[in-house]
Amino acid sequence: MTPTITAFERSPDRGRGLARDMRVRWALEEVGRPYDVRLVSFGEMKQAAHLARNPFGQIPTYEEGDLALFESGAIVFHIAERHGGLLPAEPNARSRAVMWMFAALNTVEPPVFDRDLVQILERKEPWYEARMRALEDSIRTRLGALSRHLGEADWLDGDFSAGDLLMATVLRRLNGSALLADHPNIAAYVARGEARPAFQRAFEAQRAVFEAASGG
Amino acid sequence: MTPTITAFERSPDRGRGLARDMRVRWALEEVGRPYDVRLVSFGEMKQAAHLARNPFGQIPTYEEGDLALFESGAIVFHIAERHGGLLPAEPNARSRAVMWMFAALNTVEPPVFDRDLVQILERKEPWYEARMRALEDSIRTRLGALSRHLGEADWLDGDFSAGDLLMATVLRRLNGSALLADHPNIAAYVARGEARPAFQRAFEAQRAVFEAASGG
Repeated sequence: MTPTITAFERSPDRGRGLARDMRVRWALEEVGRPYDVRLVSFGEMKQAAHLARNPFGQIPTYEEGDLALFESGAIVFHIAERHGGLLPAEPNARSRAVMWMFAALNTVEPPVFDRDLVQILERKEPWYEARMRALEDSIRTRLGALSRHLGEADWLDGDFSAGDLLMATVLRRLNGSALLADHPNIAAYVARGEARPAFQRAFEAQRAVFEAASGG
Repeated sequence: MTPTITAFERSPDRGRGLARDMRVRWALEEVGRPYDVRLVSFGEMKQAAHLARNPFGQIPTYEEGDLALFESGAIVFHIAERHGGLLPAEPNARSRAVMWMFAALNTVEPPVFDRDLVQILERKEPWYEARMRALEDSIRTRLGALSRHLGEADWLDGDFSAGDLLMATVLRRLNGSALLADHPNIAAYVARGEARPAFQRAFEAQRAVFEAASGG
């Protein structure tokens, strides 16, 4: 059965693959699983049909037969658990890969995501500079820790895993920033993720949606 | 083998069980697993011995033989995966329980945690009122969605699961607030979690640490 995911009809990132459907597309590409996409507008996301898929009214969602899931981390985990290639077989290594999934979404993503949000929503507020400084300090602390852990390794723990997939999607938001440039090993890690054929296919698929919506 | 977790030597929540070791203690109590605790000071958390357990220098960590984990969500998942009682056996229900784990930590926790942080760190800043208003709006939106989903059910999806465990630990931070009082079904849900004998045992254990540290 082909799963159906939801994605923005017109992504606010203008096709840069920063919306959270990108993670799910990438995971499905890594495991070689075809999928359908239902595009939703911002208005539709708050209507009953979509709220039945995700009570929080966000994308992505994942529908497969009787199963309906939301939360990109949980969807990636579901895909990783049912197919080979995204989680190690050895039980302890598998627990560590899951640990990096949570680390990506709970320790690294919050300040990285807030930084983007503040840049858009709070640029004219009197507290803008102070807020950005605090967020960037917080990001710097986390990137420093991540950089020391990664060292010269290709991936966070052995082979590429769902933990790397989520971490790379989080860190991509910092592409082009001094924050990332301060850590060449992390910049190379992100580039390594982006160079994977599965990432490329997922990226092109989401980009095509944005271009079609823009008539471009 | 008895696992060892780390916790604050002197928790900044003054024994209210809001630190993230509480989740791990609760999960271990639910599955009936004894554990040892290594207490760490704020200074020790940033030193090499602790950074080897968690490069981000936070608590809790979890050590069991050759396995060392950090990230409370990942530790709770590890415990849930290896013991009965915290994840349903049916595969789709299990994927949904994992979904609620991610929803607790990625959708609900960020604004709830930030509200506590802002109350402590930004109370004297000129932007304090505006920041709190934005955070509370964000929390209200999420609680509204959660309340509609929960309805009159006891738990988020069937029986109590690791998803409820994490969600309840996140929502407890709002105990006593108008935000929670606006949704009696969520307040009752949190109280239902707190009434579980395993929660009570975990709560008393972390409280005893704080009282010993305070000489109280």
